[in-house]
Amino acid sequence: MGVYISGIGITKFGKSKDSLETMMAEAGLSAMKDAQLERVDAIYIGVMNAEEFVGDSNFATLLADTLGLAGVPSTRVETASSTGAGVFETGFYAVASGHMKNVLVLAGEKMTHLPTAQTTRILSEVIDRSERRYGATMPALAALIAQKYAQEFGLSIQKLEDILSEVAIKNHSNGFLNPYAQFKKRITKEDYLRSQMVSYPLRLYDCAPITDGAAAIILTSQHSPVMVSGVGHATDTSAVSHRASLTSFNSTKEAAVKAYGMAQLNPSDIQFAEVHDAFSPFEIIGTEDLGLFPSGEGWKPLIEGKTQLRGTLPINSSGGLKSRGHPVGASGLAQLVEIVFQLRGEAGEERQLERAEVGLAQSIGGLGNNNFVTILERSDRKRVTREGWRLLYHPDIKVSKKITRMPSSRKAGILETFTTLYATPEGFRSPLTLGYVKTENGEMVMACNPDYRSPKELKMGRRVFLTTREGLYVFEKFTLSNLLKRWFKGPSKSQQAL
Amino acid sequence: MGVYISGIGITKFGKSKDSLETMMAEAGLSAMKDAQLERVDAIYIGVMNAEEFVGDSNFATLLADTLGLAGVPSTRVETASSTGAGVFETGFYAVASGHMKNVLVLAGEKMTHLPTAQTTRILSEVIDRSERRYGATMPALAALIAQKYAQEFGLSIQKLEDILSEVAIKNHSNGFLNPYAQFKKRITKEDYLRSQMVSYPLRLYDCAPITDGAAAIILTSQHSPVMVSGVGHATDTSAVSHRASLTSFNSTKEAAVKAYGMAQLNPSDIQFAEVHDAFSPFEIIGTEDLGLFPSGEGWKPLIEGKTQLRGTLPINSSGGLKSRGHPVGASGLAQLVEIVFQLRGEAGEERQLERAEVGLAQSIGGLGNNNFVTILERSDRKRVTREGWRLLYHPDIKVSKKITRMPSSRKAGILETFTTLYATPEGFRSPLTLGYVKTENGEMVMACNPDYRSPKELKMGRRVFLTTREGLYVFEKFTLSNLLKRWFKGPSKSQQAL
Repeated sequence: MGVYISGIGITKFGKSKDSLETMMAEAGLSAMKDAQLERVDAIYIGVMNAEEFVGDSNFATLLADTLGLAGVPSTRVETASSTGAGVFETGFYAVASGHMKNVLVLAGEKMTHLPTAQTTRILSEVIDRSERRYGATMPALAALIAQKYAQEFGLSIQKLEDILSEVAIKNHSNGFLNPYAQFKKRITKEDYLRSQMVSYPLRLYDCAPITDGAAAIILTSQHSPVMVSGVGHATDTSAVSHRASLTSFNSTKEAAVKAYGMAQLNPSDIQFAEVHDAFSPFEIIGTEDLGLFPSGEGWKPLIEGKTQLRGTLPINSSGGLKSRGHPVGASGLAQLVEIVFQLRGEAGEERQLERAEVGLAQSIGGLGNNNFVTILERSDRKRVTREGWRLLYHPDIKVSKKITRMPSSRKAGILETFTTLYATPEGFRSPLTLGYVKTENGEMVMACNPDYRSPKELKMGRRVFLTTREGLYVFEKFTLSNLLKRWFKGPSKSQQAL
Repeated sequence: MGVYISGIGITKFGKSKDSLETMMAEAGLSAMKDAQLERVDAIYIGVMNAEEFVGDSNFATLLADTLGLAGVPSTRVETASSTGAGVFETGFYAVASGHMKNVLVLAGEKMTHLPTAQTTRILSEVIDRSERRYGATMPALAALIAQKYAQEFGLSIQKLEDILSEVAIKNHSNGFLNPYAQFKKRITKEDYLRSQMVSYPLRLYDCAPITDGAAAIILTSQHSPVMVSGVGHATDTSAVSHRASLTSFNSTKEAAVKAYGMAQLNPSDIQFAEVHDAFSPFEIIGTEDLGLFPSGEGWKPLIEGKTQLRGTLPINSSGGLKSRGHPVGASGLAQLVEIVFQLRGEAGEERQLERAEVGLAQSIGGLGNNNFVTILERSDRKRVTREGWRLLYHPDIKVSKKITRMPSSRKAGILETFTTLYATPEGFRSPLTLGYVKTENGEMVMACNPDYRSPKELKMGRRVFLTTREGLYVFEKFTLSNLLKRWFKGPSKSQQAL
C-alpha cells in the first residue's frame, strides 16, 4: 500500500521553557491541523531518553493524553540519535500494512534544562561500554573519524580545517534563513577558527548544539501531494573499534541500498538532501556513503559550492543539525519536515530550492550504528518507466567483525587515529588523549595516553607501545627511552597517574 | 498479509547473573533456532527502561550486535509495562506491510540487581506526575482500585481477601508446573494471609515480583502452525483520577474490541487467556474487560475453579506475572510465548490445556493506560464461515475526561477509595494514607491523609474535608470537631506535620 504525507508540524528549535510533552503536542497538533484531521488511528512517538532527560517513563501515554487523544494507541520508538527517522519508519510500516489509515508520527527531546556535564553523560550512554569507559564522548569518536579521514585521503590538517569550516559556514548560512532554526546567524571562517576546541581537530562549530524541539508528520494511505518513496534502515557494530572502516558508515550504505531499491531511484535522481551533520565530518562522509559523491571526494563539491542552496545538489537547506539544532530524538523527523517544506514549495522565498521533486534524508543513530535513509517525492512527479530499473549504486560494504578475544598480550601496534578531548565527561581529567590502535594481529582497540597532551606530538600510522592499566589500554610513543623504561623500571609514572 | 509465528524463545525468569543483552540474545537466538533461521529482515526490541535499570542507551544496536546480527535493522519499542506486547504489535505491522518476511521480536528487562527502593522509584516513573508526587506507587494505585471494586460490587473485605488470595493461589499453582517461572512453589491461604501488607488491602502475594528475564518470537509472512488473528491497542488518561471508572480499564476494552474485530472472533471463542495480573485484582478486572465474564462478576468463575488449568476457561496457565515473574519489558511477550506453547501442545504434560486452539493475551501498560489484546490461533483450526460474522461484545466505555482546572476552592467531597501504603518510595514516610476524593463539582483528585493510619478508621463513600498543603490535597474526616478546628484554629497540627 502506498504511504503519503498529509501534514507536518515543527516547533521553533532552541532553548524552550515548555515541557517536552507541551512541545511535542504543539508539533503534533499543528501536523493534524495541516492534514485537517481531528483524530488518528495511532500515534508513534520518538524520544531518545525521556527517562533521564525529564524523569518520565510511559511517555507514549502521556503524549496521547496531552494531545487530547487518550484512547488512541500510542507507542514509543527509539533508535538513539536517529529516533526521529526510526519512528517515521515504524509509522510507515503501520500504514503500509493496510491496517491504519492515518498515523501521527511525533518526535522530540528536551535537553537544555540540565547542566552540560549531565547532558554529556546521558548522550554518552549511546556509546559502547568498551569505549565509554575510556571517557570517550560523541565528539571524541567523531574526531577520531575526522583525523582518520584526513590521513586516509591525504588531506593536510589545514585542508581538513578548510573543509570542516566550510560545512559549518554553509549550514549556518542556511539556518539563518530557517525560521525554526536555533541559530539564526551567519558565521565566518574567523568565527570558526576562534571557536573553542572540543576534541581535536573538532571545534565547537563542528558540533551540533544541545537543543529543545519537536517535529511531527501525518502518514496516510490517502493519496496526497508528497509520497514516501523509500525507507532504509541498518545497524552496525556497537563499538566503533570493531569496524573494518573508520571513514565510512556501513549502516548508511546498507540503509541507502534499501531505500533506493524500494524507491526504484538512483543517487543521481536525488535533487537535495538533509544529511546528519551532528559533526561536520559526518556531512562529508554521509554524502559519500549515500553515493551522491565518490568516496574520499565528498569535500570537493562542498568546497566548489555545489552543496549550497543555489548549488546543483543542495545539502542541509534547513541549516542541518548544526544550525537548526539537534534535539536528539527529534532531528531525524525534523529533516523530513524540511524535505516536505521543500517538496511543497513552502520553504520561503530565500530558502526554497529550485529543483525540489525528490529529496532524501539520512539520519545517524549512535556513533553510526543505527542509521536511516528516507526518500520523499512529489506525487505528481513524472517518472520514466520503472521497467528495467536497475540500482546503479553498489557501495563497498566492509564487513565489521566482532572481536571477542582481548588482545592482552599484544605489546605494540599502529596508532590508527587519535584525538585530544578537552570537554571530558564527569570523572575524567581534561585534556584526555584517546586513540585507536591496530594490534599486530589486526584487532583494533581504543587506548588512552596520559603523556602527550599536544596533538602535534602524535602521528597517525606510527608504531606505539600498548600496555594495560586498570583494565584500560594505554599507548605510548615507540621510543628507545620508553622501551628501556618498560624493560627496566616497569610502568612509567605517567601511567600510574592515570 | 497474514502474519504467523514460526519461532519462540524464553529464558528462565528470576534473578539472573547475566547482563540484559546476554539474556535477550539467549531468548532471541533460541527463537531463531526454533524457526530455523540464521538471519531476519528486522529486529524489534522491547525494553521498558534500559536507561535507568542498566545505564545504557542505544540498546537496539547493542542487541543486534550481541546477536551477531550487526547490520540488520533494529528498533526499540516501549509502552511501559506492556512493552512486550507493544513490540509484538510493531513487528506484526512490519510483516503485515509485506515489506518484511521474517522479523525477530525480542523483549526483556533486568531489575533485580538494584536496591528495591531504587527499582520502586524507576517503576513509579510510569505514574502521572500529578499522582506520583503524593508518593503513589503502582501497588498503591492498584489497591485504590481493589478497594473501589469491592465497594462498587458489594464485597466485604473478607470476601475480597478470599478472591485475591484465590488468584495468587491459582497462579502459583500453575507457575509450579512452568519450568521458566520465577517461583516454583504452591502457596496456601495461610501463606497468603501471613504475607506482608504492601498497600492495604494488597499483600506481597498480590503483587508481581521484581524479575530478570527475556522472551522472543519470530513473526513471519510464511504459513506456519500458529497465526496472529488479532491485535488491539488503546491508551487511557495518564492520571487514574481523570477516569470515569476506577473498576475497569477502557484501554483493555477498546483494545479488545479491535482485536476481536480483526480476528473476527467473539469472547465466547476464546479457550484460554493470559491476563496481566501484576496485581491480583487486575486479573479479575481483566477477565471482565475482555468480555470473558460479566462486569463485577469476574471473581465468581475464579472461586468456582473455572479459571484453573482443568477449568472451562483457564486463565494464566503460565503462572501469570505473579508466579512466572514480571521483568516489566518482557512480560507482554512472555504471555504470547505461553500461548504458543499451549497452541503447539508443548506446555508439558501437566500444564498442557485440553482445548488450546484459540488463546488471548492481555497486557497492561502503566496503570491501565497503554493496554494490548492479542489473539493467536492454530492455523489448522476449523472455522465456521466468517460470512455474517458480528461482534457480540459491546463494552461500556466510560469516556475519561481530562481535568485541567484545579478545584482549589472545594472544601468537601466524597472519599471514593483509599489505601494505606506501607512500602513507600524514598522520601515519603510510612505508612502513607492515600485516597481519591470526588469534589462537589464531580472532579476526582488524589489526596493524602496524615492522621488516619489504620484502614479501619476510614470508610469509602463518606464525606471528607479537602484542604491543600504545599500543593497537595489533604483529606480529613468530616466531623464536628474537625469543622470547628478548621473554622477557629486554622489547619490542624497533623496537616502541618505533613
